[in-house]
Amino acid sequence: MQWYFVATLLTILTSSQGILTTLSQSNGGYKYDYATVPFLAEVFKLVVSSILLWRELRMPSSPKMTTEWRSVRLFPIPSIIYLVHNNVQFATLTYVDTSTYQIMGNLKIVTTGILFRLFLRRRLSMLQWMAIVLLAVGTTTSQVKGCGEALCDSLFAAPIQGYLLGVLSACLSALAGVYTEFLMKKNNDSLYWQNVQLYTFGAIFNMFRLLLDDFRGGFEKGPWWQRLFDGYNITTWMVVFNLGSTGLLVSWLMKYADNIIKVYSTSMAMLLTMVLSVYLFNFKPTLQLFLGIIICMMSLHMYFAPPGMLVDIPSTAKAAPDSLREVSVERRTDS
Amino acid sequence: MQWYFVATLLTILTSSQGILTTLSQSNGGYKYDYATVPFLAEVFKLVVSSILLWRELRMPSSPKMTTEWRSVRLFPIPSIIYLVHNNVQFATLTYVDTSTYQIMGNLKIVTTGILFRLFLRRRLSMLQWMAIVLLAVGTTTSQVKGCGEALCDSLFAAPIQGYLLGVLSACLSALAGVYTEFLMKKNNDSLYWQNVQLYTFGAIFNMFRLLLDDFRGGFEKGPWWQRLFDGYNITTWMVVFNLGSTGLLVSWLMKYADNIIKVYSTSMAMLLTMVLSVYLFNFKPTLQLFLGIIICMMSLHMYFAPPGMLVDIPSTAKAAPDSLREVSVERRTDS
Repeated sequence: MQWYFVATLLTILTSSQGILTTLSQSNGGYKYDYATVPFLAEVFKLVVSSILLWRELRMPSSPKMTTEWRSVRLFPIPSIIYLVHNNVQFATLTYVDTSTYQIMGNLKIVTTGILFRLFLRRRLSMLQWMAIVLLAVGTTTSQVKGCGEALCDSLFAAPIQGYLLGVLSACLSALAGVYTEFLMKKNNDSLYWQNVQLYTFGAIFNMFRLLLDDFRGGFEKGPWWQRLFDGYNITTWMVVFNLGSTGLLVSWLMKYADNIIKVYSTSMAMLLTMVLSVYLFNFKPTLQLFLGIIICMMSLHMYFAPPGMLVDIPSTAKAAPDSLREVSVERRTDS
Repeated sequence: MQWYFVATLLTILTSSQGILTTLSQSNGGYKYDYATVPFLAEVFKLVVSSILLWRELRMPSSPKMTTEWRSVRLFPIPSIIYLVHNNVQFATLTYVDTSTYQIMGNLKIVTTGILFRLFLRRRLSMLQWMAIVLLAVGTTTSQVKGCGEALCDSLFAAPIQGYLLGVLSACLSALAGVYTEFLMKKNNDSLYWQNVQLYTFGAIFNMFRLLLDDFRGGFEKGPWWQRLFDGYNITTWMVVFNLGSTGLLVSWLMKYADNIIKVYSTSMAMLLTMVLSVYLFNFKPTLQLFLGIIICMMSLHMYFAPPGMLVDIPSTAKAAPDSLREVSVERRTDS
């Protein structure tokens, strides 16, 4: 499978996630407990990965599986980082409003690039760094509040703690991604065996989260397993399977491609969701969405196009590089 | 003189032009007739260029001067294009509001690139084309109406004629620039002699414009030459000298550099004016201004930096280009 095929599929599914989640609401709220969705998605991913691993085990060339504790113990770490991240996110939202939080979320594109360089020691060209910054700028541009929007919060007015927590949140989010890539690539274990470890811990952590919610609520609504499928309908199940599928695609990308490709996929998905919302939910198209799309497309091309294609001057004429130095007297006469 | 020194000076002076013009207003209006400013600026440029040409003529190596009519007759053409442009601008504004007109004005960055390629046959790399589009996107982003602004006109609601005239206006503006570059570079005549021809026609056209205004107003306020300096103060004179100086710098750039450099100078000046307005006139800084500045800076670097500097991967590691092709099985194991 080619990485760009997987990345495109991830973009489409991530984008559908937003649309499906909106469609699964009734009268602006959820009839089901939203916290059950990630848990069931983890279970779905675990089941799919287990079946694929079992098929691989029946093959003549059996898959490579490292089962030592010192390897297995690394797999709950992404779940732990996400747990800390969720709490930081909660703390951040006590200082800043949701739209400022959303804008600050684009910082994770840049922090992913930085941790990708520091932690995984991957080198990028200056043009690729510029592309990463432009991707963050492009997604931010598309989210700029238009004139006439009801709520008008000032982005520059939150207390300093809000911004610091926002940066921390972006770092944690990037760390979870970069750590997962490290985990998937550190040896040539079977992807499905790595997934089984990752999702087992993922399911356990999500289960604890549901239990914690029950404790906090004093078990008023009964334990989570008794009301797991309450209010579920066909759309809710589609949300679960879709979330599970995007998770499996991300795992694949972490092993066979990298975090930057994942970041591009999900950024493009965000823009696609906004465009689809214009059609599906009668959202008003804005100039900033249009500009954001152009910026992100330029960034995509800058990052992935072969360098030669970008910098070569077509044909034999060497006119353009003149602008890089002072035009000499000789040139003046022949133009 | 280096082109980047001239370009920087042009940026600073163009930016001051906006500030000075605002400062020359009293109670939100002009005490003087604003149409007299470009006329006096043309006269100032003509005087300066004549003095410099006269000095050149006294030198042992006399300057090259083509005085045949078939060369001289080309010099009123830029003035004629500007005259048509002004009328198209006037017509456009009957269909679209000023802020939509201002947004559409950024199109001239792209049309300049296209006419630069078609008319002057200068070739650009794909990265340079992308830089030009990004410059237009960046300046547009900085102008996106923020939330909470009083007037909230829809950009997508004007009649089609408005957009067509806006495109025509952008083409005419680009044509005037590209034609001037052709004029200045078509032979190695003295810059000052070329300027004298250009500004003589410029002064004449501006004079006719003042006379036309008088006719339209039925000479109620008397002929223009009797009230030329009415309401002038020190700031008004600074506006005149500043406009004249920027014109002289643009002429220099057209001869020794090119239109794209001029476009970058004036775009940067627009952003600088907006930043200075935050300090001088207590304008509220917006997220879109900040994003626009980042985009334009990236564009500047993409266009002018040496290609090698942009695409080379630092040090010996060849990790980054992996993302350009499918990561092979061999690579998976060693990372």
